[in-house]
Parts: sequence; structure tokens; C-alpha cells
Amino acid sequence: MDGGNALLLRADLGEGVTRLALNRPAQRNALSFALLGAIQDALAQIADDQSVRVVILAAEGPVFSAGHDLREITGRRADADGGRAFFEAAMRRCAQVMQAIVALPQPVIAEVQGVATAAGCQLVATCDLAVASTEARFATPGVDIGLFCSTPAVALSRAVPAKAAMEMLLTGEMIGAEHAERLGLVNRVVPHAELAEATLALARNIAARSAHTVRIGKAAFHRQRGLPLAEAYAHCAAVMTENLLAEDAIEGIGAFLGKRKPVWRDR
Amino acid sequence: MDGGNALLLRADLGEGVTRLALNRPAQRNALSFALLGAIQDALAQIADDQSVRVVILAAEGPVFSAGHDLREITGRRADADGGRAFFEAAMRRCAQVMQAIVALPQPVIAEVQGVATAAGCQLVATCDLAVASTEARFATPGVDIGLFCSTPAVALSRAVPAKAAMEMLLTGEMIGAEHAERLGLVNRVVPHAELAEATLALARNIAARSAHTVRIGKAAFHRQRGLPLAEAYAHCAAVMTENLLAEDAIEGIGAFLGKRKPVWRDR
Amino acid sequence: MDGGNALLLRADLGEGVTRLALNRPAQRNALSFALLGAIQDALAQIADDQSVRVVILAAEGPVFSAGHDLREITGRRADADGGRAFFEAAMRRCAQVMQAIVALPQPVIAEVQGVATAAGCQLVATCDLAVASTEARFATPGVDIGLFCSTPAVALSRAVPAKAAMEMLLTGEMIGAEHAERLGLVNRVVPHAELAEATLALARNIAARSAHTVRIGKAAFHRQRGLPLAEAYAHCAAVMTENLLAEDAIEGIGAFLGKRKPVWRDR
Repeated sequence: MDGGNALLLRADLGEGVTRLALNRPAQRNALSFALLGAIQDALAQIADDQSVRVVILAAEGPVFSAGHDLREITGRRADADGGRAFFEAAMRRCAQVMQAIVALPQPVIAEVQGVATAAGCQLVATCDLAVASTEARFATPGVDIGLFCSTPAVALSRAVPAKAAMEMLLTGEMIGAEHAERLGLVNRVVPHAELAEATLALARNIAARSAHTVRIGKAAFHRQRGLPLAEAYAHCAAVMTENLLAEDAIEGIGAFLGKRKPVWRDR
Repeated sequence: MDGGNALLLRADLGEGVTRLALNRPAQRNALSFALLGAIQDALAQIADDQSVRVVILAAEGPVFSAGHDLREITGRRADADGGRAFFEAAMRRCAQVMQAIVALPQPVIAEVQGVATAAGCQLVATCDLAVASTEARFATPGVDIGLFCSTPAVALSRAVPAKAAMEMLLTGEMIGAEHAERLGLVNRVVPHAELAEATLALARNIAARSAHTVRIGKAAFHRQRGLPLAEAYAHCAAVMTENLLAEDAIEGIGAFLGKRKPVWRDR
Repeated sequence: MDGGNALLLRADLGEGVTRLALNRPAQRNALSFALLGAIQDALAQIADDQSVRVVILAAEGPVFSAGHDLREITGRRADADGGRAFFEAAMRRCAQVMQAIVALPQPVIAEVQGVATAAGCQLVATCDLAVASTEARFATPGVDIGLFCSTPAVALSRAVPAKAAMEMLLTGEMIGAEHAERLGLVNRVVPHAELAEATLALARNIAARSAHTVRIGKAAFHRQRGLPLAEAYAHCAAVMTENLLAEDAIEGIGAFLGKRKPVWRDR
């Protein structure tokens, strides 16, 4: 585990589960340029790390994340260009982080212990899965400060029904965990005290499977999502054929037919 | 406000909220060619009217809208071409109205007091938000009269889950307001007597924000919706950068950090 | 009706409703290459059969379908190419069956009496409508056997919210009928003893309409789904114009205005 001073804590929880925790609790885990960079770096490392099978994205302190760091943004208005170059870089980096989560070979599970707003809510919407505490709450309140949550809308509108997304974006209102579950923004809501345990159990459940198979599947899921039906099927049928020829499918199907437990080689 | 004879009533409700009301109650607010034209004209005016910040789309009488005007359609079968030219023009105009609602800079909230069927249901599905009375009901019953609700399907299938849309389209069955809320067709259901007030409160809530910001956001939301993820992020990250440099974001973020109320200049 | 030995039973239930039933109950209705071929053949025949107005897709025995036939797949690993040619052919055929259901002129209703897993769950997700018994259950458990449900993901992710689809795919967990209804995977859940009757009633409801109109509508629905909004409207507005000029719309609208029952000529 990194030192407590790091912007992002990384902990190996065993059995292939790695937990990343946003660690700017005094700043409500605002996504500063440096913190976004730390997430990028961590994801880049994890992408190549065969020992990591599932990632949990969590946060220190009572708030999950308040989104972009407004103090940092305001500080850059004094730049010669009024901040334009920095804002461009920050927005690009933020969008890269979100797409890096989607592109990461391993599944990413958000563990949402508190308020997740703006780009913080976007992080939750972007993760493959999300477990929320009963105390978690969600909003895209940029409209309150003159900065519409346009990039969060990209993730939100791909996770929840259109009118629900639009309501969150236009009103900025906070929704509770149960509401978020009904909308599809999170998968499960658990008692606050059980959040870490429940998220870890879900992560270990997935981590116990063939990592090769999970990687194939996550990539195929995201690849086919936006494609026309015929292209989606052409892609996934080809993926299935390769998957069938892989060692873990031979082992897994053999074990199933033989009524024994499979032993994954992860390839 | 226009005279009571107009096909479409327009009322300024103050604080930037304009209410358009379909006004053919004796014809169940059927969307005649002229009424569609009146909606087009009103939206074109509103698009350029900086004083309008939010639009409510409502209806006079007990029915929200029964969709296309079947008497008008039948009357044109006597045309030399059997009605083809008129039908083409009417379908084109109807599709233009729906797209004009999406393209309108200001958010549009449907205020649904009664039955909304066929293109009437499509209007609700098309609006950015919708508030329904407990007495509102929804259907796409074209299948009952040999005229499948194909254009309503465009809006409906972008608002509710696929199988739910297909069921409404294939059976023509009426669904209640609560069911419509669960499907995502409307945002909220309120007691019938409170509908106008609840819709106005929602409209004023949004109208109190920076109009510039809301316009940026609505446009970005619809623009990114159908794009591949990388293009959606590229577009919205650019939008966010410009938004950050706009006066209302400077004011809004400054006010937030200074713990004071922002004063919008709407730019 | 075919003999009881056929892989797929076809029964004419009257009033334009044809029921196809997977008939490998001892093999949990596994979708062998031959069964997939039988479905293809049946759908190809039905596509050209004007007497069929609605198709019910059901299954014999306690299981709806367990997906691909793992014994058959394993048997082909002994092929000179390790099974590659067969796997390619099987995956292509399976994807063709799913797309043939979508492309079939007539609506297809899944009648789900039991467990539907992997490609069996995909069949349900693919059908236009689905009625489930309270005993139906659904899963995409390929991850348990090293074979991710990549092609089922194509249909599943177009039927239910993204995070719900991802959870089913990554965990392989079984969900109950009520849960499936909330997600949008099935339209209705009925008591087990009433399943056949309820599905038939829904089928007859649709079969009583103008077959021409239903065909136009189903095709337009699927055609417009993935298109950008302007293209979707251009397509469907053209469809509506032709529909308005068809005999059944003239009859249906005339009957509606005349307050009499329409007599469909199905064109």
C-alpha cells in the first residue's frame, strides 16, 4: 500500500482484487489534475498486471467525490490565457480517465460510501458495476454553478433512462441510493457498515473466474454496445469462436461436463 | 396571451417560463397540419427569445393529445393523388416538430393532464422532461386503426426499454401514469389538482439557473447521445472548456467558493 | 404439428398464431447445431407464410433453454482443426437465428416456463416480447465455464440497463422472473399454470390486428432503433406515408371514425 499522503491509495486485498481509493478527503476527493493523473497512472499499471483480476474504486472520508477541483480551476483563471490551456488539458484528462476505466481489461467496481457529484457521479456511472451504501447520494449539480455537467452526461445517459438523466442534469437535485438503484446507476445498495465487505465479496466472486474469460467478455461488451446489430453479432461471434478455442474454455466446459471444479490457467 | 381561438395558446408565466397549450379540446387536441404549424412557429419564435428560459407544453381540456387528426387525413383521401402529397407533408411536419423540441435551446417540459396517444404520446416522449397527473394515461394505439405508430416509436424507443416500447406499439394498450413513470416515459406523477403547480415549480427551478449554461447543456446532451463513446467525450470535453471560460461559470464557481448566491448574466 | 421426435415442434394454435417449441427436454433444450438449423428453417418458412400473424417461441420440459450444446462442442475438439471450423459455423448460425427473429415480419413472443441461460437467455432478450412464468429464471453464466456470454451480451445489453447486463454477465448469477420484469427483459410475469394461456391471449390480441400494419411496424421499429434521430425520423415518416395509403389504414381509420369494427384485408 502507498503512503497515506498519496492522492490515490492502492491496496492489494488478496485473491486478485486491488482497491484504489481517492485520498483527498479534506477536499471532498475533488478530482484535481494531479489526482486524475494518479488514477491514469494506476490504471495503466493495472492494465499490464496479470495479478490484478478486479479493481474496486473507492474513496476515503465521508464523500465519494465532489467532481472537478473548483479551487484549482479558479486559480488558473489568472493564467495568461484565462485558463483555457489548463481547462482543455483537465477536461481531456478527465475524459481519458473515464475511457481508461472502460478500456481497462479488468472489471472496475465503484464502492460508493457517500456523496458522488458531477465528475464523481460520472465515475460511478462509468464503472462496470457499482455497490452503494444506503448513505450514498448522487447528483450532477453543475447547473447550480454555471458549469453544466456535459461530460458527466456522457456516462450518465449511457447508464440510466434519458428523462432521468436529463432531470438530474437540469435540476442538479440529489437522489438517494435506492433511487439510483432503480434507475440503474448502481447495482446494489447495502447497509453502510457492510459496504466494504459487500463490494469485496462481489469483487472476489468475479476474481475467482478465469481472468482471461472476464477480459474477453468485458472488452466485447463495450466494443459491441454502440454497433449496429449485424456488426455487433459479427464481432461477438468471432470473439466467441476464439474464446471456445482458449484453454480456459476447454477446462471450464470440461469441468462442467465432468461435474468437477475448474482450474483456471487464465488464458 | 393569444386569443382563445388560437390553435395553440401561449402564456408567459413569469420568471422566464412560457407555457404553450394545445387548444383543440373539442378535437381531443388532434395534431392537425395547422396545429403542427402553430407549434413550429411558436418554437421558432421561442428559440430566438432570450427572455424564455423554460417551456411547458400543456393542453386544454381533458385530453392531452390524441395524435394526428384522422378526420383531416380522411378528408384528403379525395385529393387527386389519394392524399399522398398531404400525408408526406404532414408526416414531415410532425417529425420536424418533434426534432424542433429536441433542438430548441430551452428545455421543454410536458405537462400531461390526461390521455396522450399516438403522436400525443410521442410529444411526451420527446420533451426533455415530463410531469404527469395521476389521471394521465399513455398509448400508441395506431395498430388498432391499421396505422402503426412508426414515428412515435422513434421517440418512445429512446425513452423506455425496448420490450416495453414494443408492447405498447404492438398491443396499443393504455398504461397508467405510475407505470409510465416506472418505464421512464415521465419523470414525476402528481395529484391531478397539483399538476400545473408542480410543473411550474419544476420549470421555475430550472429557469432560475444560468440560461446560457442550460442551453449549452441541453444541446450537448442531445448531441452526444447517439455518438460513439470517444466522439461523445471529445465533443463534451470541448463544450466543458468553453463553458468554463464563459461568464456564468466564472460567476457561478466564484459564488460557490465564496458561499454567496450567484447572479447570472446568461452568457 | 410435427412428430414428437422433431428438434423443434411447430403447432398452429389457430387465429394466425404459430407456436414453435424447442424439443430437446432431456438435453435442457440445448441449442445444438441441428436445433439452430431447425429454428432457421422454421423461421424462413414462416416469413413467407401469410397465414402466420404471430409466433410464440416456447420450450418443452422444465427448462426453456440452457444455451449452446456443450457436449456437441466438446465432441468437435477432436476435429483436425481443434473444432475451429465447427465453432465458427455454430456461432455464425446462432447469430443468424437471433437476427432472423428480429428480421421476421411477424412479432415473436417468448413463452418462458423455466430456466433460460446463456444463448437461451439471449433468445428471450431477442424476442419482440416475452411472457414469463413465476418459475422462470434467467442467467448468462458462461463466465462460470470459461466461455463469456459475448453474443448473449449483444441482445441483453439492448434489452436491459447497462450495469444490470454487466452484472449478469460478470457474475453469472440467476435472476428471478420479477427481477427480469423490472429490468425489462420480460414484459409480464404470470402464474406458472397460466403461462401458455396468457401468452396465447397476448398473441391473439396482436394477431387480431391488420397483419400488414404489424409487419410494417415491427420492421420500422427495428430499422430506426440504431439510427441517428434525423435518419430515424426520415425513415419512419416515409413508412407512415406508405402506411396511410395502404388499404388497411383506409379501412381502420374509416372504421374508427364510423364507430364500427374494422375488417382487415391485411394489406
